Amino acid sequence: MGGDFGPEVTVPAALTALKKFTALKLILVGDRETITRQLQKQGEAESDRLRIHHTTQVVTMDELPSRALRGKKDSSMRRAIDLVKLGEAAACVSAGNTGALMATARYVLKTLEGIDRPAILTTLPTIRGHSHMLDLGANIDSSAEVLAQFAIMGSILSGVVDSIDRPTVGLLNVGEEEIKGNEQVKEAHKLLTAMEINYKGYIEGDDIYKGSVDVIVCDGFVGNVALKTSEGLAKMVSHYMREEFRRNLFTRLAAVVAMPVLRAFRRRIDPREYNGASLVGLRGIVIKSHGGADSYSFASAIGEAVIEVDKNVPQRIKDSVLSLMEGRKIA
Amino acid sequence: MGGDFGPEVTVPAALTALKKFTALKLILVGDRETITRQLQKQGEAESDRLRIHHTTQVVTMDELPSRALRGKKDSSMRRAIDLVKLGEAAACVSAGNTGALMATARYVLKTLEGIDRPAILTTLPTIRGHSHMLDLGANIDSSAEVLAQFAIMGSILSGVVDSIDRPTVGLLNVGEEEIKGNEQVKEAHKLLTAMEINYKGYIEGDDIYKGSVDVIVCDGFVGNVALKTSEGLAKMVSHYMREEFRRNLFTRLAAVVAMPVLRAFRRRIDPREYNGASLVGLRGIVIKSHGGADSYSFASAIGEAVIEVDKNVPQRIKDSVLSLMEGRKIA
Repeated sequence: MGGDFGPEVTVPAALTALKKFTALKLILVGDRETITRQLQKQGEAESDRLRIHHTTQVVTMDELPSRALRGKKDSSMRRAIDLVKLGEAAACVSAGNTGALMATARYVLKTLEGIDRPAILTTLPTIRGHSHMLDLGANIDSSAEVLAQFAIMGSILSGVVDSIDRPTVGLLNVGEEEIKGNEQVKEAHKLLTAMEINYKGYIEGDDIYKGSVDVIVCDGFVGNVALKTSEGLAKMVSHYMREEFRRNLFTRLAAVVAMPVLRAFRRRIDPREYNGASLVGLRGIVIKSHGGADSYSFASAIGEAVIEVDKNVPQRIKDSVLSLMEGRKIA
Repeated sequence: MGGDFGPEVTVPAALTALKKFTALKLILVGDRETITRQLQKQGEAESDRLRIHHTTQVVTMDELPSRALRGKKDSSMRRAIDLVKLGEAAACVSAGNTGALMATARYVLKTLEGIDRPAILTTLPTIRGHSHMLDLGANIDSSAEVLAQFAIMGSILSGVVDSIDRPTVGLLNVGEEEIKGNEQVKEAHKLLTAMEINYKGYIEGDDIYKGSVDVIVCDGFVGNVALKTSEGLAKMVSHYMREEFRRNLFTRLAAVVAMPVLRAFRRRIDPREYNGASLVGLRGIVIKSHGGADSYSFASAIGEAVIEVDKNVPQRIKDSVLSLMEGRKIA
């Protein structure tokens, strides 16, 4: 039911995902009537592969996480996560309130052994392909140990999802200071250097999109600002580009000629392809879609869940995190 | 002498600036022979408006600030700042090592009364025009008081440079947490709310390029990551765009047709136009050019210095900072 557009987006996305992933079964959690209406619009109905799980409440986008957790036990968000806990669903995908989703997922599913704080991880396009970045806002003022756990989780996820042998890991820092970074980052650097992951040391902001490493580790405050700054910059760039192509008759003609190229360009870095952030470190798979996702974009988030289920990401993290924190190599 | 290219860039930039600003006089600080050779290349020589101040040392781009400060008393960087201190120059412009420039400027010029830490401020293009952001890496783990001083300095500079009556100020934060942000940001929010500046409250990363406020205030770690992430994203975007336009004969033809539009677009957000970060909070004007600046770009940094001299920015900050910190309105 969540996100800025609710079932108007999530229902068509579910249908797209069912076509794409033939072994997939989906449970649509929310108000039965609303969902049924949206299904009918698409000429579809409930089926063996597409069940509706009726709930009576909705967590709003600006609701306080603590209120959602305490007061909305029959919300679509809570029930979807409950289904994961009960083993009736292998993953939960939501475009809802991030804070409430994280708080509820953490409360219901619990963190994996060896993980203090779950993190939000996203995949980003880079000049070389793509990379994974965490944390994106679940944790503020992360300690060195927590940053090291992020590195481990990111490394395992990247290895498993991208089938990379020893994914490279970088710690986001600044380059200007005499003694680089803040205390937590410097301490995390020491921890990571001693660990059996492919740690490449400090990276700076411009390395994110260069693709200098497979996994970018940072505190949630910094990661959130970096990601949202990118969103803002991308919007400004397309705003100015549109304005220039609409300036006069000549530029409009140029736009027509250039359109296939511009479309191909957009596909290369389409944020909709990269929709679907993982709440990693939990005993279950929870994927957060961008709140403003369209149905194409939300289907990508479902696709992310399918991959993580196939690869059994939480189990893989569980298998490796304790030995890595103790400095031993991944089995 | 500084930057990635030295006098090869700074000398032509100086000549451009002299043409543009007819009242401007420049002192080129560095190795006389190298500078003279570059001047000759351009068919120019030392003159009343273009003096050379010979120095024997150069601070390298990767030199530790403390070493530069202690060991290079006849470096072009140190001498240029000395000239500001002595009143022989109204401002110093450098493309050199940022850390060394900040450390030297702070040591030689001292901070203004009421300012604990100088900050690096830059101007960024936005959908609505431009905005100013600080700090960009001079200060890590800034306290609430320091963030409040950044807000005051940014507000005064924006008011003076852009001739805005009450420039709007936003504090960079994240939106996901139950109780937003970290302790310093929350405390700074309280300080700013009580102050006689046009404080608009928290903003998020995507507000930077939206132009939601005239002045964006943040800790140097966060600001540095945001700025460098933007640089990286911009490079990735132009990389992919170039690649798509070079794909085949049709796309190359499309590129020719679209070129004037793409050029106009680039001009709108040309980072070279925005080159020239101010080291604000000092008893003198010091402008930091991007190390990789070309001569067009370095000339923009000189232009920034001209504006700040014309508007007497340090004096204006000095006049207002104490009364603002005490909660009184700008005179």
